Amino acid sequence: MKEFDLIERLTRSLHTNASVLTGPGDDCAVVEMQGHGKLLVLKTDCVVEDVHFSRGTNALHVGWKAMMRPLSDFAATSAVPQFALITLIVSKKTEVTWVKEIYRGLRRAAKRFEVSIVGGETSSTTGPIAISTTAVGFVERGRAVSRRGGKAGDDLFVTGRLGGALTQKHLKFIPRIVESRWLTKNFSIHAMMDLSDGLGTDLPRLARASKVGFKIDTEELPLTRGANIDAAISEGEDYELLFAISPRDRQKLQTEWTKKFPKLRLTRIGRLNQKLKIKRPVLSDSRTDRKLKGGYVHFQ
Amino acid sequence: MKEFDLIERLTRSLHTNASVLTGPGDDCAVVEMQGHGKLLVLKTDCVVEDVHFSRGTNALHVGWKAMMRPLSDFAATSAVPQFALITLIVSKKTEVTWVKEIYRGLRRAAKRFEVSIVGGETSSTTGPIAISTTAVGFVERGRAVSRRGGKAGDDLFVTGRLGGALTQKHLKFIPRIVESRWLTKNFSIHAMMDLSDGLGTDLPRLARASKVGFKIDTEELPLTRGANIDAAISEGEDYELLFAISPRDRQKLQTEWTKKFPKLRLTRIGRLNQKLKIKRPVLSDSRTDRKLKGGYVHFQ
Repeated sequence: MKEFDLIERLTRSLHTNASVLTGPGDDCAVVEMQGHGKLLVLKTDCVVEDVHFSRGTNALHVGWKAMMRPLSDFAATSAVPQFALITLIVSKKTEVTWVKEIYRGLRRAAKRFEVSIVGGETSSTTGPIAISTTAVGFVERGRAVSRRGGKAGDDLFVTGRLGGALTQKHLKFIPRIVESRWLTKNFSIHAMMDLSDGLGTDLPRLARASKVGFKIDTEELPLTRGANIDAAISEGEDYELLFAISPRDRQKLQTEWTKKFPKLRLTRIGRLNQKLKIKRPVLSDSRTDRKLKGGYVHFQ
Repeated sequence: MKEFDLIERLTRSLHTNASVLTGPGDDCAVVEMQGHGKLLVLKTDCVVEDVHFSRGTNALHVGWKAMMRPLSDFAATSAVPQFALITLIVSKKTEVTWVKEIYRGLRRAAKRFEVSIVGGETSSTTGPIAISTTAVGFVERGRAVSRRGGKAGDDLFVTGRLGGALTQKHLKFIPRIVESRWLTKNFSIHAMMDLSDGLGTDLPRLARASKVGFKIDTEELPLTRGANIDAAISEGEDYELLFAISPRDRQKLQTEWTKKFPKLRLTRIGRLNQKLKIKRPVLSDSRTDRKLKGGYVHFQ
């Protein structure tokens, strides 16, 4: 594979817009920020062969996932992505067709959210393929959501359904950016994150960052058809939103959500509570509870 | 290696400043941009084991290089770096000590230019180690330099000395950000880039982007002690600046440079000229000329 020729060909075909003053092919990308006076939002993430995808996976889907993973973090922050940079680490034996398909997936995913790919580096490797994507964008000062603002008593909601994502969804998911932007436009969202490692791993992170505990009613979890509670808690790769909001907003949220997003389920799965004064997590003997790492209270 | 524990420990120790509202450990980094109304500058780059460094290389130096490579592109653009994101792809067999040393090198390099590391992702791999670094910063509207602005008749200058960088310098170089910022503050720099792949590969890129040809006097090349002309043209990894400037500025530039940077050589190595009306590069038979890929005129 002639590296530089290929990059040149691939990056020539990248769609950029008027805000991109210097795009791929120069030393740095130089761009104009939209959102004058807003906060800058940055995220990098990667997918690695044999870890995030297997050798036989459709390259188009791999490219899609490589772009959408960091954009899912933008959803978690309620931020608007604008630019992306790609580092593609491929073996000299990698087929040109495969690399082209990766880029087709990256471009298709970027276009879905009007993101311009403004830089593309390629390196060779003797090992597995890796794609690192950096997304850059903005968020209004009052709308940036982190994992830290959850309060004891807050309702916990998740979008969509959990579990079973490893079959198909993890290669085709659409980050919940539209939903997240709607949420922060209309409600005060105290804390939010995207579920990439599974509720059983991610919820304790949100609780820890917010210095609170949590209580989940596992019977209420919105399961993907065919998935069980264990899968919903521990499989991961759901890329749904988990957020904390005051119970005072509960009724209004549920009514307006159903009007705005009639096809996407929104489920109250439990609530945040006061952190127990214990150093070690309380773990019971049930199989579900063993999945929980570092939580302050156990799942019911 | 317990991935999440390690990241948490490493990122806790990262130095950030008041402009970092949400730093490592959350979904996205959220930061305030300095430089109100300035242009946003973005660059990603990577170093891969067995390609950019060998297994036995001091991990501190690998971390240093991983940070400094994209910062050298900031020098090329005359931009000020502010934030960095790291993706570290390591094998499960990688020693924790090694990863810590990588981060020590990354931190030390970032600190040299007051860059805050605001995000750090880690993934496992079954193959060679790879580190991808994204740098984000700004440049004033009138000071962004690309490869595209060179004009026929411009003088070509390089900083420092060329060749022999693979022995030591490629692991310890200091990007020419200070020099580049001084250049665009005091002079009109038409085109600029950093020499990472060697003059014989990089200069034709600058000429091609500027739609001009070039003529180099190889006798004038500033050689590193012990390096020959071939090495200066084709080894690469020099990370010196190459820039094009009007010959009207020549005398003032040389006088003021010597006052400002008495220890760093600045050499006029040739000039840009009108692009010859040929489709294929003219290549002579000499060994030096064979090193040149895609130039429009041959080295003398």
